Amino acid sequence: MNHPLGFTGSTLDRADLLRLDLQRMAQMAGSAEARLLTLSGADPVLDEAGRLLWSPLREAERGSDLLFLGLEGDAPRFAPLPRLEPGQRAWSVFRLIAQMAPEEAAVWATARSLIEWHNRHGFCSNCGAGTIFFRAGWGRKCAACECEHYPRVDPVVIMLAKFGGKVLLARQPQYPAGRFSALAGFVEPGESIEEAVARELHEEAALKVSNIRYVASQPWPFPGSLMIGCIADAASDEVVLDTAELEAAIWVDRDEVRAALDGSPSAPFAAPPRFAIAHTLLLHWLDGR
Amino acid sequence: MNHPLGFTGSTLDRADLLRLDLQRMAQMAGSAEARLLTLSGADPVLDEAGRLLWSPLREAERGSDLLFLGLEGDAPRFAPLPRLEPGQRAWSVFRLIAQMAPEEAAVWATARSLIEWHNRHGFCSNCGAGTIFFRAGWGRKCAACECEHYPRVDPVVIMLAKFGGKVLLARQPQYPAGRFSALAGFVEPGESIEEAVARELHEEAALKVSNIRYVASQPWPFPGSLMIGCIADAASDEVVLDTAELEAAIWVDRDEVRAALDGSPSAPFAAPPRFAIAHTLLLHWLDGR
Repeated sequence: MNHPLGFTGSTLDRADLLRLDLQRMAQMAGSAEARLLTLSGADPVLDEAGRLLWSPLREAERGSDLLFLGLEGDAPRFAPLPRLEPGQRAWSVFRLIAQMAPEEAAVWATARSLIEWHNRHGFCSNCGAGTIFFRAGWGRKCAACECEHYPRVDPVVIMLAKFGGKVLLARQPQYPAGRFSALAGFVEPGESIEEAVARELHEEAALKVSNIRYVASQPWPFPGSLMIGCIADAASDEVVLDTAELEAAIWVDRDEVRAALDGSPSAPFAAPPRFAIAHTLLLHWLDGR
Repeated sequence: MNHPLGFTGSTLDRADLLRLDLQRMAQMAGSAEARLLTLSGADPVLDEAGRLLWSPLREAERGSDLLFLGLEGDAPRFAPLPRLEPGQRAWSVFRLIAQMAPEEAAVWATARSLIEWHNRHGFCSNCGAGTIFFRAGWGRKCAACECEHYPRVDPVVIMLAKFGGKVLLARQPQYPAGRFSALAGFVEPGESIEEAVARELHEEAALKVSNIRYVASQPWPFPGSLMIGCIADAASDEVVLDTAELEAAIWVDRDEVRAALDGSPSAPFAAPPRFAIAHTLLLHWLDGR
């Protein structure tokens, strides 16, 4: 995989053993090297070079809940934990992400997923009592029943079905104009990655597939998915679309995909952005793998 | 992958489009072909051939919450939703699973994961109010804030590190005597599968690895993981063990692995059971891939 995958390559050491060490955590937050990620709501704030902004961690902020993102060398990096309003997710964040290097986007993505999770987990799913921040932001604990809760990561399969030199792409109603991307769906309890790929292609497009191969994976912080990219051989190109989820599907050949990835105005569809694994899957397929 | 992976190969059609169709669900539960999975707590109950026991769905059971597992041909299959006591997980269930075909274990695993999830999600993590059963068991909904909650699937990486013709295995304190298995850990927000593999091998064994390859995956219903099996090349065989998680580690060669998988009494360790993906990873490595 030569193309850098979006949201991967963070240079932070997560140093997970420090998360439960309250004394060390307080020491680090008080150190001159401690830095706090600057956010606007849960969105990144960038400098002119498209890099994340960090500020020294000030006295006033040390009392509030801080997410420990990890160490950059010896320097501790934290993120704030803002209260989000429901539905506060703007498509404009994708314009910012497009300007960011994947390894910078990875650091922000970690913070973003944790913030979303904390905002939806102020109460214990086991008993309904309030939960408290613990593990430096990598968990919450119930003050009543003592249940421990950990940030959720939802595995999602995203895949290209191949048939006769073409691959299948589809569009959801909320996509930007012209955009088509790979089909995708959540992995459910009781199935493998390969079974989820086969089920989703069957449910959404009525395709039967075989020879399912894993290609690559990426985190996706909207709000907290693990995207698992695969490719599979379809038994035919007869598609019956699940119109509850998708509004259109197209089979595209290599020239059409190349044109779309190049951003050509004559391309029959607009490609998924470089930071999305669907883009990587298309490049992988063009490479003839 | 010729070796059948544990907990995969279910022949049920999950028929997810029916889950929200309350009328159809009531019709199916009332049909003569409807079957209910027999459970003991959350454990499977087997016939003499090691197959799951099913009973006709009776009038009395139709009023209670039923998990819709899917269709076997046209025949609907359901599971009950028992109330579990905390910590009610017996190691004895592994003896039952060892007798089951993977495709039978897959059906039970789906029910088991859903049951565990419902038992821990009677309350809304967003507002603390009670949640109600919906989507035929594939979700819960908050009666107060209307948040929808979906069954959790936790991605876990499990991997063999290779060095000089050997692979690294380790044991957790609670394993049966002599058992060693592959190292594993949860994928965290903001990282890819490959990054999680590298991080876990570094955290647990102080290994640096490269060339991380995906091999296979399986669901693991204790309580609801997606096990993602990988193999990686270690830069050395110098291990520093995280003794908070692991009590011992060994590098084993092909002859030792073969002896263990054959159950030989002279093998230097007891192999993970056939239904665990660690077993599959060892077979894959023996095959020279």
